Amino acid sequence: MDWSEEGFIQHIAKLFPVENALVGIGDDCAVIPNEKGLSWLVTTDALVEGIHFLKDQISPRQLGYKTIAVNVSDISAMGGEPKYAFLSVAFPNSEGMSSWAQEFVQGIKEACQKWHLLLLGGDTVGSKRDLFLNVTMIGLAKSETIKYRHQAQDEDIICVTGYLGDSGGGFKALQDKLTETQEIKLLVNAHFHPEPNPQQGIWLASQNGVHAMMDLSDGLDCDLRRLIKSSQKGAVVELNQIPISEALAKTGQKNGWDTLQLALGGGEDYCLLLTVAKDAFKQVQQEFQKTFNQPLFPIGKVAQSPKDLIYHQNGKEIQKHYSSFNHFQKEYAK
Amino acid sequence: MDWSEEGFIQHIAKLFPVENALVGIGDDCAVIPNEKGLSWLVTTDALVEGIHFLKDQISPRQLGYKTIAVNVSDISAMGGEPKYAFLSVAFPNSEGMSSWAQEFVQGIKEACQKWHLLLLGGDTVGSKRDLFLNVTMIGLAKSETIKYRHQAQDEDIICVTGYLGDSGGGFKALQDKLTETQEIKLLVNAHFHPEPNPQQGIWLASQNGVHAMMDLSDGLDCDLRRLIKSSQKGAVVELNQIPISEALAKTGQKNGWDTLQLALGGGEDYCLLLTVAKDAFKQVQQEFQKTFNQPLFPIGKVAQSPKDLIYHQNGKEIQKHYSSFNHFQKEYAK
Repeated sequence: MDWSEEGFIQHIAKLFPVENALVGIGDDCAVIPNEKGLSWLVTTDALVEGIHFLKDQISPRQLGYKTIAVNVSDISAMGGEPKYAFLSVAFPNSEGMSSWAQEFVQGIKEACQKWHLLLLGGDTVGSKRDLFLNVTMIGLAKSETIKYRHQAQDEDIICVTGYLGDSGGGFKALQDKLTETQEIKLLVNAHFHPEPNPQQGIWLASQNGVHAMMDLSDGLDCDLRRLIKSSQKGAVVELNQIPISEALAKTGQKNGWDTLQLALGGGEDYCLLLTVAKDAFKQVQQEFQKTFNQPLFPIGKVAQSPKDLIYHQNGKEIQKHYSSFNHFQKEYAK
Repeated sequence: MDWSEEGFIQHIAKLFPVENALVGIGDDCAVIPNEKGLSWLVTTDALVEGIHFLKDQISPRQLGYKTIAVNVSDISAMGGEPKYAFLSVAFPNSEGMSSWAQEFVQGIKEACQKWHLLLLGGDTVGSKRDLFLNVTMIGLAKSETIKYRHQAQDEDIICVTGYLGDSGGGFKALQDKLTETQEIKLLVNAHFHPEPNPQQGIWLASQNGVHAMMDLSDGLDCDLRRLIKSSQKGAVVELNQIPISEALAKTGQKNGWDTLQLALGGGEDYCLLLTVAKDAFKQVQQEFQKTFNQPLFPIGKVAQSPKDLIYHQNGKEIQKHYSSFNHFQKEYAK
């Protein structure tokens, strides 16, 4: 067995084939058809101390908020409205954990209120050493507008809904213990306080011109490779078109960062990656701007072949992997 | 904040009140009404290495099976049919974990096949040290027959659907490293291979005479206290009527065990605890025996007051707590 997250998931997906209208392992959410043309979307995300977060780097309130936000992002990515959350927590029974837990739950509550979510249940258990969190979220979507990863078509325009790399930059600034500037504040905020937007997901899913969609959690390089693999396509991405925020550009320049590496491999962007039919793109882009008062960024094109991700920069082809945050290989902190 | 699982759950339940027909935190499952008189039942259970299991005491296959079984038990307890499972695993990336994971997934598969469950998704992440597991399960039930903990009525007969303490005895036999006898084999099997029976849960839920129901996971003493608290009732339990298997009685006698302590506080029985209207009891008991070819054991009565759990033995009243397996206070192994 290929001992990586991807490998393990493929192993499980093979062992557990899914029938009929159900969609199982491999997309952002499972899809369970329901009444009146609606489907339930179900997603689940685990966060582990020492791998996904460090208790002395993220406040309990921020962590509670983020635990909910990352699941909201998965529901949004398929065009659904998040509805119900289930929270499992394994707490080490150490000193100070009681006030920690109270703050943590406040962060959960803040996020649930923001997205009109109901926390309906969960499990609270002990842990010997590390803190472990798991949220399962259920959302609702119109069955016929649900967007999957496998629907990209030739010549589709590849788009993202936000600046890339801010969260990765915020994490790097924390790691490198940089003096806080106004820009670094913005980056760190992007890292701790992601803002997935289900309304954008629902709107984009309802556009006929939008074909494939997923959320950006592990970095564009990693996630776009997943999307084209699932669609059996290739992609050409124009590096000059990757949207980089002023805050990241400025901080990167000042500190000699490889901002493209952060934008393509930093991960935790929690905005949307989608492909739009070439003919529909202009209109979708304009209406998106009008509706949400923010741009939809085109960054490249879906190609029939080669079935690979190719980068273009200043007219040249660049073969490169912007390696992403792989929980199995790269630990958050040593 | 009361720093115990119960205290934390109450704290959360207060912070997250739930509206309308939804049932949230505090029962075996959350209930989400759906089409055609059906409701979704959702439950979630976390298992942590060093607290709920030890990797050198339970095989990966047994653990995979049990991870699913404990959730099936929750769905059964409200009268539902388990349908979909979502599995989160946080694996330490240590040697031998690849074959461990493969065996583990086989146990998951075995359980999913047994209960006709579809594994629809999950999350696979790394862990620094300990192994964490979480399963969220979704079941389906007829809305009008769903049974809750809060529905016990005065003079109801309290019943259980199986022998109590076998799993606790099996665990004790393992802890004490007893030489395996035929009886100990049965007890250890009860510990590793619980057999919740959704058909029994569905059948019992459909009986008008059955009022309150829940599953026995933390031991009768603990779980019955939860049931009567939720129903705002008291209970009298006849210790002479507690069903003890031959295997437990024999092993207990031979090794000087307090079998009642195991039966009432051992936990992990994963059979059902229910209350039945006094007038309906005889018929429900007979039909249960006929349908499932096994007895429904009456063990006591619901009382209006005192709002406490009272034990009777040989005509005497015994005030005693058979303390249960509390993950926050008593660790699985030191």
